[in-house]
Amino acid sequence: MTGLTPKSKTPRRAIPPQERSHEVDHPSSPVAEFGIDKPLRLDCGVDLAPFQIAYQTYGELNADKSNAILVCHALTGDQHVANRHPMTGKPGWWETMVGPGRPLDTSRYFIICSNVIGGCMGSTGPASLNPATGKVWGLDFPIITIPDMVRAQAMLIDYLGIETLFAVVGGSMGGMQVLQWTAAYPERVFSALPIACATRHSAQNIAFHELGRQAVMADPDWDHGRYADKAVHPHRGLAVARMAAHITYLSDAALHRKFGRRMQDRELPTFSFDADFQVESYLRYQGSSFVERFDANAYLYLTRAMDYFDIAADHDGVLTAAFRGIETRFCVVSFTSDWLFPTAESRALVHALNASSARVSFAEIETDKGHDAFLLDVPEFFDIAHAFLESAGKARGLNEPGE
Amino acid sequence: MTGLTPKSKTPRRAIPPQERSHEVDHPSSPVAEFGIDKPLRLDCGVDLAPFQIAYQTYGELNADKSNAILVCHALTGDQHVANRHPMTGKPGWWETMVGPGRPLDTSRYFIICSNVIGGCMGSTGPASLNPATGKVWGLDFPIITIPDMVRAQAMLIDYLGIETLFAVVGGSMGGMQVLQWTAAYPERVFSALPIACATRHSAQNIAFHELGRQAVMADPDWDHGRYADKAVHPHRGLAVARMAAHITYLSDAALHRKFGRRMQDRELPTFSFDADFQVESYLRYQGSSFVERFDANAYLYLTRAMDYFDIAADHDGVLTAAFRGIETRFCVVSFTSDWLFPTAESRALVHALNASSARVSFAEIETDKGHDAFLLDVPEFFDIAHAFLESAGKARGLNEPGE
Repeated sequence: MTGLTPKSKTPRRAIPPQERSHEVDHPSSPVAEFGIDKPLRLDCGVDLAPFQIAYQTYGELNADKSNAILVCHALTGDQHVANRHPMTGKPGWWETMVGPGRPLDTSRYFIICSNVIGGCMGSTGPASLNPATGKVWGLDFPIITIPDMVRAQAMLIDYLGIETLFAVVGGSMGGMQVLQWTAAYPERVFSALPIACATRHSAQNIAFHELGRQAVMADPDWDHGRYADKAVHPHRGLAVARMAAHITYLSDAALHRKFGRRMQDRELPTFSFDADFQVESYLRYQGSSFVERFDANAYLYLTRAMDYFDIAADHDGVLTAAFRGIETRFCVVSFTSDWLFPTAESRALVHALNASSARVSFAEIETDKGHDAFLLDVPEFFDIAHAFLESAGKARGLNEPGE
Repeated sequence: MTGLTPKSKTPRRAIPPQERSHEVDHPSSPVAEFGIDKPLRLDCGVDLAPFQIAYQTYGELNADKSNAILVCHALTGDQHVANRHPMTGKPGWWETMVGPGRPLDTSRYFIICSNVIGGCMGSTGPASLNPATGKVWGLDFPIITIPDMVRAQAMLIDYLGIETLFAVVGGSMGGMQVLQWTAAYPERVFSALPIACATRHSAQNIAFHELGRQAVMADPDWDHGRYADKAVHPHRGLAVARMAAHITYLSDAALHRKFGRRMQDRELPTFSFDADFQVESYLRYQGSSFVERFDANAYLYLTRAMDYFDIAADHDGVLTAAFRGIETRFCVVSFTSDWLFPTAESRALVHALNASSARVSFAEIETDKGHDAFLLDVPEFFDIAHAFLESAGKARGLNEPGE
């Protein structure tokens, strides 16, 4: 989720569990609380209640509530799209995309982003306190799915008094949520911008996720998910999982361009297991910084949700059936060097949308930045997002700024 | 290193260290011992002595010693190319390629394969006993390189009384050794068959290896490499490393064809972290079976050797210089779906060989089997290897069988 600049910082200490758990249960962003009378019906059969959804908003909702855009975050993202992160102190994860004058222009649109259900930044998840026991949920938390995340978001949108979203936008796991929104609530989504995603998780992607989960579970501090009881965190296993995932977010070409075989602060090999190569140092940093802000069990749950995602399977294996008669305008975006969600996946989606007679445009953007491109500075991508929302805004009758 | 058939076996117990260590120091194959008067000069500056090389041979050396083929094994391979493995009981790792009537025809050629220096199947490595301490070497073992492996093999070939090898053959890390043989001892290599390899390790490949090493080192049982003193083995970390590597050996297409999103012994998801998907079950099996036969520290050392490999760097950055004036006949082979060592890497090698006026043929073989293709049943690959050795044999004046 971060840029490619290699950092040679030594890994910092793991954040104490009590600091992380504060943001889990008492987030620094607004929270929508749903009581036992408003359960979230989960795909696994459980009614989750009570639960809470932590969210952020930017910009103003207009009088007829027609300018709301829901941003859906990716696996390790959160609701802090365009504000300083309360734990890391870093800028929001999509400030290139969301802000005044940006494609998701906060002077024109009302932007909403919520932490997904199952996450660890204020929405109820495995790191939250289980009211039935007074202890952290851990693996007692029910398995959640992408449709569950979207069902919870729909309850939040109801709570905010919004009937129809002008747009739903997201990349990677966020893109899966965008697609699920259009399949589950087509009448509530005026336009949809699914980026660098797929209608189902591939075998290779499941394999990488399973690798990450096994890395977490191999850490003795994971302790079958009950680490919070002992105030420890399986940071070694989670760091390894993050390193594995991070390689998949980049392209071979980007790694070659940024690091190649260059050595870290030296010219000759040390003939040791030190991080001789810059790419090693970079990966270690990615692993160690991630564990300070993310919960290991949440990582298990969210990767599992992505693995289970398969829109066609919910429609007797026929993808077209998921989008039949849909009025939503789509703009599907992929990146040439994204090997985690390759263009072929987006193309299959576009074919299904075409077969459903949906309004769809498709852009494959040339870049060597890999899957991470959707989070990076890719002007062509911003131009496409801007133009799509501009055009959809006209169709929606949204006013120009200052009018 | 194994086929793609999913296994649903439950992970077996880790093999007791004393069983593994028996094969390390007292292998069931022949051993060439080199005393303190015959040190192995390592690139890191250390003279390793004494040391031993465990090897296997198949077929008969002819009277003028002109029919010897050296097979170089890959990262987790060993000398047991075409005989039952002494620890796993499985067939040799390249029985499709080596045997009577196979491309490396044991009725015509004398096939030699030795466990690499730094390995754990009988050649001296970090799992061996350090004669200076009476304890297992662990991380006190010096860092080894691909040139070191080849230098040790050259000493073995001397020991066997062979001046010139008819061919040197290998895939992946084995292919790196083939290239190093031709760069270091061009006059001793009549023909060379480097398969699915490169003249240097890419940033992405270094990243995957670093991930594997970090997974091993994250296991508390690794204990800074001193696990043998406590008769434990960091099998959890090593299994995770193996899972990561295994994903890179396959292609997305092969995973899709073999597993897709099919469930393991069920039709509906369990909504749990069980191995619902066949691909998860397969990966877990790959991890757990690997740790029974391989030493964790050896895995660190051999991945490090691959990372350091860069033939051009040893020739002032000019790859062509490594092969100037070489008389060796080359056949370079790559596989279309190999993303670990993509065809572009082989093509760069072929260009350098062409620029050096070397005799070189090049085959890119169409297959969806990924990097693992060189170990699998790919008839076109066998045909090419057979034809190349046939033609080289004629040039070498080797007799036909039965003549």
